[in-house]
Amino acid sequence: MHRTKVRVVEDALDANNTIAQANRDDFDRAAVKVVNFMSSPGAGKTTLLERGIAGLDVRVGVLEGDVMGSMDADRLAALHIPVTQLNTASGFGGECHLDANMVRSALKSLPLDEIDLLVIENVGNLVCPAEFRVGEDTRAMVISVTEGEDKPLKYPLMFRACELVVVNKIDLLPHLDFDVDKLLYNLDAVHPGVAHMLVSAKTGEGIDDWQAWLREQARMEVAV
Amino acid sequence: MHRTKVRVVEDALDANNTIAQANRDDFDRAAVKVVNFMSSPGAGKTTLLERGIAGLDVRVGVLEGDVMGSMDADRLAALHIPVTQLNTASGFGGECHLDANMVRSALKSLPLDEIDLLVIENVGNLVCPAEFRVGEDTRAMVISVTEGEDKPLKYPLMFRACELVVVNKIDLLPHLDFDVDKLLYNLDAVHPGVAHMLVSAKTGEGIDDWQAWLREQARMEVAV
Repeated sequence: MHRTKVRVVEDALDANNTIAQANRDDFDRAAVKVVNFMSSPGAGKTTLLERGIAGLDVRVGVLEGDVMGSMDADRLAALHIPVTQLNTASGFGGECHLDANMVRSALKSLPLDEIDLLVIENVGNLVCPAEFRVGEDTRAMVISVTEGEDKPLKYPLMFRACELVVVNKIDLLPHLDFDVDKLLYNLDAVHPGVAHMLVSAKTGEGIDDWQAWLREQARMEVAV
Repeated sequence: MHRTKVRVVEDALDANNTIAQANRDDFDRAAVKVVNFMSSPGAGKTTLLERGIAGLDVRVGVLEGDVMGSMDADRLAALHIPVTQLNTASGFGGECHLDANMVRSALKSLPLDEIDLLVIENVGNLVCPAEFRVGEDTRAMVISVTEGEDKPLKYPLMFRACELVVVNKIDLLPHLDFDVDKLLYNLDAVHPGVAHMLVSAKTGEGIDDWQAWLREQARMEVAV
């Protein structure tokens, strides 16, 4: 009984989760599904979104998180979809992740009634983004084969937090000492059974799977 | 006059800088030069250290920062040099950077009288590590050519904080749409005149320059 009380208090004190739930409620009311999309810097999130959204039969919007600049947002706006830029550079060197309150501050500029799926492209970082829920339904991450097979073991929280792991840049495999089986073995060690797909945003290999996954997210029933 | 006072108070309140200075004093007393070595996950820091330290005519030690595990420390210990592992996973998902107090906690296990150069391999992250001084003399970072030319513009603090930018994995250039000149142009925009070198830890290209730089750090006069 005492334990239950403590948990309730801790949960109430967790401002981020409280705000994340408020975001989630707003998304649910608008019938918008939300993907929190994460990776290291340069793993290919934006290129995967360009490839995945072009020609997709789903109304997609993107919330673009960056420390500074709007380069990725500018690239995605070329797809003629709603894109909102969120910069985290208000602090000294900038926040290394999005939190629920930052996403909440962007809610008003998001045309939720015009989209079915919102992809939140997080700041490039394998640590902190996994620690902050922002109101998403699903979390997905990208790992590039140039990053090494050991990454699930070194950043286990990120790999555990996600419902999908996209293994990108497989076109480079012939030029790397990278063992896909070893990566998948390490991935299975930290997150048994997690969905994964092998893709190349450059050549288009596997992009059908990625588009199918995005389509599926948009069409999932809202959990009540 | 008033302004000066405010600055002094702010500086005194900055616990991290105070501890960083204490670390620096200890390093100076032991005549050990210190490099804070940073990058994204998977850019090749550990492989560059393996390549750079092997055969180097300098007594090197490594302080290895990771969220979890000791894989990199184990690799470097094979070089028969002093390696100390520092894990940041004591919090919920782990700290995304080293700070001065974490480094201080490792000082006692570092054989400072047996080395001339200490390389602190930071957690893989392009944001927060640049915000926390740990007592180093010099900061160096690695960017892999697989990460894209835009990274200096997206993570300017990191690129500005460093005295050396190592551009790694140039063996992959023939297989990438990566324009080295564009990277260097962007680098110059955020940190004019910063030293850089192009290397491949895989093929060994440019590793002579990297070793020369490490040697030079160890032999620099202590600033008084």
